[in-house]
Amino acid sequence: MNHRVMLLIGVLLVPTIGFANEGMWTFDNLPREQLKTKYDFTADKAWVDNVMRSSVSTGGCSASFISPEGLVLTNHHCVAGCLQQISSAQKNYLIDGLLARKREDEMKCPTTELSRLEEIKDVTAVVNAATKGLTGEAYKNAQNAVKAKLDSDCVGENKAMVRCSVVTLYQGGQYHLYRYHRYSDARLVWAPEDAAPNFGGDPDNFNYPRFGLDAAILRAYENGKPAIVTNYFPFSKDGAKAGELVFTSGSPGRTNRLLTVAQLETLRDVRLLNTLRRGAELRGLLTQYRKLGTEQARIAGNDLFFLENGIKVTNGELDALLAPDLLKRKRAEEESLKKFIAGNPALKKEIGDPWEAIARAQVVAREIAAEYDAVETGRAFQTRYYAIARTLVRGATERSKADGLRLPEFSNSRLPVVERQLFSPAPIYPEFEKVKLEWSLTKVREWLGTDDPFVVQVLGKESPAQVAARLVDGTKLGDIAVRKALWQAKQDDRAVIDKSDDPFIQLVLATDARARAIRKRFENEVSAVEQKNAELIAKARFAQLGTKVYPDATGTLRLSFGDVQGWTERGKPVAPFTDFGGAFKRHTGAEPYALPASWLAAKGKINLGQSYNFVTTNDIIGGNSGSPMINRKAEIVGLAFDGNVHSHGGAFWFDSTVNRTIGVTSGGILESLKNIYGATELLAEIPVR
Amino acid sequence: MNHRVMLLIGVLLVPTIGFANEGMWTFDNLPREQLKTKYDFTADKAWVDNVMRSSVSTGGCSASFISPEGLVLTNHHCVAGCLQQISSAQKNYLIDGLLARKREDEMKCPTTELSRLEEIKDVTAVVNAATKGLTGEAYKNAQNAVKAKLDSDCVGENKAMVRCSVVTLYQGGQYHLYRYHRYSDARLVWAPEDAAPNFGGDPDNFNYPRFGLDAAILRAYENGKPAIVTNYFPFSKDGAKAGELVFTSGSPGRTNRLLTVAQLETLRDVRLLNTLRRGAELRGLLTQYRKLGTEQARIAGNDLFFLENGIKVTNGELDALLAPDLLKRKRAEEESLKKFIAGNPALKKEIGDPWEAIARAQVVAREIAAEYDAVETGRAFQTRYYAIARTLVRGATERSKADGLRLPEFSNSRLPVVERQLFSPAPIYPEFEKVKLEWSLTKVREWLGTDDPFVVQVLGKESPAQVAARLVDGTKLGDIAVRKALWQAKQDDRAVIDKSDDPFIQLVLATDARARAIRKRFENEVSAVEQKNAELIAKARFAQLGTKVYPDATGTLRLSFGDVQGWTERGKPVAPFTDFGGAFKRHTGAEPYALPASWLAAKGKINLGQSYNFVTTNDIIGGNSGSPMINRKAEIVGLAFDGNVHSHGGAFWFDSTVNRTIGVTSGGILESLKNIYGATELLAEIPVR
Repeated sequence: MNHRVMLLIGVLLVPTIGFANEGMWTFDNLPREQLKTKYDFTADKAWVDNVMRSSVSTGGCSASFISPEGLVLTNHHCVAGCLQQISSAQKNYLIDGLLARKREDEMKCPTTELSRLEEIKDVTAVVNAATKGLTGEAYKNAQNAVKAKLDSDCVGENKAMVRCSVVTLYQGGQYHLYRYHRYSDARLVWAPEDAAPNFGGDPDNFNYPRFGLDAAILRAYENGKPAIVTNYFPFSKDGAKAGELVFTSGSPGRTNRLLTVAQLETLRDVRLLNTLRRGAELRGLLTQYRKLGTEQARIAGNDLFFLENGIKVTNGELDALLAPDLLKRKRAEEESLKKFIAGNPALKKEIGDPWEAIARAQVVAREIAAEYDAVETGRAFQTRYYAIARTLVRGATERSKADGLRLPEFSNSRLPVVERQLFSPAPIYPEFEKVKLEWSLTKVREWLGTDDPFVVQVLGKESPAQVAARLVDGTKLGDIAVRKALWQAKQDDRAVIDKSDDPFIQLVLATDARARAIRKRFENEVSAVEQKNAELIAKARFAQLGTKVYPDATGTLRLSFGDVQGWTERGKPVAPFTDFGGAFKRHTGAEPYALPASWLAAKGKINLGQSYNFVTTNDIIGGNSGSPMINRKAEIVGLAFDGNVHSHGGAFWFDSTVNRTIGVTSGGILESLKNIYGATELLAEIPVR
Repeated sequence: MNHRVMLLIGVLLVPTIGFANEGMWTFDNLPREQLKTKYDFTADKAWVDNVMRSSVSTGGCSASFISPEGLVLTNHHCVAGCLQQISSAQKNYLIDGLLARKREDEMKCPTTELSRLEEIKDVTAVVNAATKGLTGEAYKNAQNAVKAKLDSDCVGENKAMVRCSVVTLYQGGQYHLYRYHRYSDARLVWAPEDAAPNFGGDPDNFNYPRFGLDAAILRAYENGKPAIVTNYFPFSKDGAKAGELVFTSGSPGRTNRLLTVAQLETLRDVRLLNTLRRGAELRGLLTQYRKLGTEQARIAGNDLFFLENGIKVTNGELDALLAPDLLKRKRAEEESLKKFIAGNPALKKEIGDPWEAIARAQVVAREIAAEYDAVETGRAFQTRYYAIARTLVRGATERSKADGLRLPEFSNSRLPVVERQLFSPAPIYPEFEKVKLEWSLTKVREWLGTDDPFVVQVLGKESPAQVAARLVDGTKLGDIAVRKALWQAKQDDRAVIDKSDDPFIQLVLATDARARAIRKRFENEVSAVEQKNAELIAKARFAQLGTKVYPDATGTLRLSFGDVQGWTERGKPVAPFTDFGGAFKRHTGAEPYALPASWLAAKGKINLGQSYNFVTTNDIIGGNSGSPMINRKAEIVGLAFDGNVHSHGGAFWFDSTVNRTIGVTSGGILESLKNIYGATELLAEIPVR
């Protein structure tokens, strides 16, 4: 699957010059000419509006409405967290799956919020007016303030139903205000047993051919009743044929196609490599922890699942950046743009040498990376208790400030998300938290060194195991009521927090000054320099390439187009479709190649020739998981859930010869609902054409 | 500590142009002029012979004689394997340490063999004559044959006492025959508690200041009696002062200072990165496994210790190769040599473009790396049972061939080492072997893919856990008698092996053809190309730089020179010495910063101002662990056991401004023997000046 850990990197826009089917396009700027020329397809306003309003975001994943009464299709791995949250030692919905035949059996996901993009508004002029003539910290603060105000004004009084967000596109070339309809009550209707979507497990993830039913169905509720929607995608029974035009509509998280070479080298040498170092070790730890017993296996299962997915992404991106071709081409593009600037004196005067400025910022980025990671991103404290304590402490400080002066993650428009996470009823398992915390405490000592004042402050005369035990045994933050009390002490937040004797609160209070200091240094000396200079590069690039380009992914709604197509791997053609028969052939009975009992029992009823998974040339990236794959009639022909091994390079460029989106076919979903899961009621409700 | 996993890379010679104190010099070609000019020191024949014959190799580490009755000084971490082998669930010598006050209490190390270099003979002409006019596989076979013959003739009848080895220096520029005196009976006399040498643990390893008593004393035996030696190093009571000239005499394992840029990139992108990927994950696994209980902690302790050390080396080398400076300089050196060749038509005609040939071999190296690693180096099967089975199967095949036609690791001269390993009485713990094997089986599926024929053959319809359990539960290879029977069935080795129903033997038999095939491809298309062309580069380099250069490290005896000197870290000076008082200051009581009880009890008796650890500018690398550090009078002033964080770059260049050797001072060893361990008998025997 294709869920991606978001990287904490700012930056980025515009594409490299057009490859076939390249691009994650905003809905206000679709590649109409290319669609017309290549596919004879006209994206008229009605079509675009319908696709936009049928598309849904789950926060980290994509999804879509598939019925008038609020049924929402997404990936199974996008609801895996919910399945784990509603499970217990007695009942494991992740393993067993779930089918609510009656509405009253639909199960609420405690932390899931759905949203639908309603409107896009260009606010570039407003933002630019607010920051005009400012630089550095003043620029950053003014921009935070105007964004917070635009968000707040847009939301108005109806906070429960409306969410707004200013999106920075083309690296500051454009600012758009996105308004969403919120659905804060999402309930699970159907999820297959984990063995069906996760068939092939980590070995098959990001590989192809594959055979995964990575699908699940939620229902959006409003006021305790199913949400009624006018825009949704009906299913196409036949799906798409080889060569047929297919769109994805979803929210790709982040691409880095326009980082400078210096930034790509920092990403490779520092960020990705350190992510790999941490991730691989934690993977081994969790793998062995899960062997302690069924309950430990359940508790750590979801963490390990997403960790392994993240490691594949990191490895793929590292390999892409280490392969000789990519940086060679990036260097050539950089040289080409520099030459273009050099040939244009007016532009040269305006632009200067932003590459050099960014390269200098990389020296700082490399120097402070370990401290920033450990202290500000909180990797020193790998436990949910720490995240909760930090939200409480910083939230108290930040909410006492005017909206525009806060850390952006505590602006009024973001508070509903913060509170949803903070008050999540998802269980916390103290013994598991101790294991992770002890590990991360040994790591921070390794990263910063035993004699670092932060390490000395945190460990004192204790070992990581002793500190972890003391903190976890002493905290009350596992109790939601305690969190609520600390958060809601509105009159004098700081005093309540300061008086708390909770060891995690005390820890955050003791270390927050250093965390804020390194954050400030990072923002002022790295990200601000990168943003300011990337804006200059973007200007030059617009001048060179014109405006018919797409921005880098920003976690917001995009449309991609492509067609059903295999590729050639080491000289051998890879067919675009797999079928149910292939899944049974691949079944060994040994995990992760063990089909669920329901499948084995249903084998005689299943149409083994029915297409199951397929690949297309759509340009997607992590965050697109759960994206509807639709045909020109806006019918669902598939459900995106993964990319092939070459898709990792998509973070940096799009190579349509090998980069492929992987989806479950619409026919495959219908076949399983009918002949494996007997989901009669659901099938009666889902419009199929 | 500075023990390094040997990398399977051929190649390499000559240094870059002389930095201060650079060089790992062979004893037949010492930098006499530099020593005279800089230190007014004359290395006369008597001095050199004495140092050579006082130096000892343990196979993976360095050591030295320190008394006329065969006492041998080396690092504690060099005997950690032995300490674990002689330990049991009842008695843990690694944790508790060991002091034999009487000779009959000295404990034999089951797999340790000591050797002393006796003679160096130039056999370049003999080797060249044997391979003259040959290329490719014929060249390789002829060279293997002549080396095997030279070795065998040199050893003669006295196999028990003599070992010989042809050493390839200057990448084939020279071949020298090294003759050694073997001491196959080595017994432990003194080892401190693990908490003393390992004080600071992984966090302090490769860092400085540090406080480790990484020292142990063995005794060489011959015919059941202490070996009598005429050459040994007396201790210097006062040790060395800041700025004083210090030599190390030891066996650095491998440097890669003369790899081409293309080779360095392969090393970085493929070998080191994959080593890190594997190592970090296994580290997490073993860390968590050790928490199962005291016995599991003991069983997996030594594996984890060396793994963590290896990860630090790998990380350090990766960071060195990723830092912009190193490859920039290597590229400049390459360009300089290419220009030199271009300016010399005769040389140009002879040399051609070896860099291009090596670069082309890298394409193959990258392509086959995963398969070579998994299948030929056996990383698919991370268990000692597999290593044993493979030795038995290949040994049967190879020993039936003439000496010169065998795989080199089974040549007659190597068989004593093979047998020592094969018949090692070191215990094997089946449950631990299952954990490692299951893990590596999941990894090979990840590296090669589920559909790879090798993976399909090994796993069949089973999961990695099932295969690991079946193999480990079914094998008898834990029994030394079974191994001996299979190895010693001399009359018809193949038949005995082929009939064995041991599952590991069966596994090796079933997979060996593919393993040999990928090895052949690697040797013919990668290493042979690299060797042939590296020889050409070496010729050009000799022509450019002359012959007053040192060869890359080859695991054989070398002398380095340097002086006691701190360095400057981020603008702050680092003092060259630490003292016992510093160790007590660093003591927190929590592992790994907990001094042993013996130290705490002895605190009042210890001279806290006595120097303990120190740093010098000697040029050493992994394999030098245990090297005597001697003054100009050939007295021991220290014992090398580590390098600072900058020493990792020493694999690729020597930067005397920051690269430092770390040792225990002679005074520090004497102080601890006297006032902590009360080793009266030892102190009476060790000559001190």
